[in-house]
Amino acid sequence: MTKENLMREAIRLASENVANGGGPFGAVIADKEGNIVATGVNRVTDSNDPTAHAEVSAIRAATAKLKTFNLQGYSIYSSCEPCPMCLGAIYWARLDKLYYGNSKADAKRIGFDDSFIYEEIQLDPTKRKLPSEILLDKEAIQSFKDWENKTDRIDY
Amino acid sequence: MTKENLMREAIRLASENVANGGGPFGAVIADKEGNIVATGVNRVTDSNDPTAHAEVSAIRAATAKLKTFNLQGYSIYSSCEPCPMCLGAIYWARLDKLYYGNSKADAKRIGFDDSFIYEEIQLDPTKRKLPSEILLDKEAIQSFKDWENKTDRIDY
Repeated sequence: MTKENLMREAIRLASENVANGGGPFGAVIADKEGNIVATGVNRVTDSNDPTAHAEVSAIRAATAKLKTFNLQGYSIYSSCEPCPMCLGAIYWARLDKLYYGNSKADAKRIGFDDSFIYEEIQLDPTKRKLPSEILLDKEAIQSFKDWENKTDRIDY
Repeated sequence: MTKENLMREAIRLASENVANGGGPFGAVIADKEGNIVATGVNRVTDSNDPTAHAEVSAIRAATAKLKTFNLQGYSIYSSCEPCPMCLGAIYWARLDKLYYGNSKADAKRIGFDDSFIYEEIQLDPTKRKLPSEILLDKEAIQSFKDWENKTDRIDY
């Protein structure tokens, strides 16, 4: 499939998901030849999972299918610019490229918090709306030392 | 439990997870009285899921258990400062407060990409290491119109 047709499928999934009671978001993951390996839609409300955005769902489906946590060699087509959670997931999954249709500004106009979260993430933790507190950092570092000392660890 | 003991449990989970072959990250979600409702550890490598960080895993476990996508009234205790994906998930879950031990700088020192992703997310998409391209935005907007026109939608 062409990149345009892969994006059309992501958009079709978004509209279909609205008809099914979900949010207006769809995503497709494809290999370099344009073959779809997995898709995802936003299932936050019906699955009671605030992380079940279209991109996260597509990544989880693709990695489960391909039996790897690394999606190098694949691209993601999302009907909307990913929120910070989904963009983070795209980085961790090592996807080659991101294509998107609607922007975070479009998402803001229909009531979604993507832009707000982008603004918050850039701030120092002490300046965010989300209260946060550093606790027992001197004890927590032991878990990182355990990691460093483990000779048979699987890096990722 | 006190906030210190909730954090100690998150740290204990992180060290236990290293011993079990996973990454050095643990998280605990507790209610206002300090009762643990769910926990999570990093299972990226053994579950082939790049989104299975400790905080995302704890949020998914808590929302599944409580049968809601909204964790208002609950706090999260993470052995390490959340990466952008997990911080985004914390916002979407509407958690009241975040406590963390190790910092993203500590995570960078032992080889994790948290700081890099924080830097990337702040950039305009055209300036990121991850190539991205806007595609068919004029077609994609129809899915948002479908959402706006849906009278029985569930906002979130």
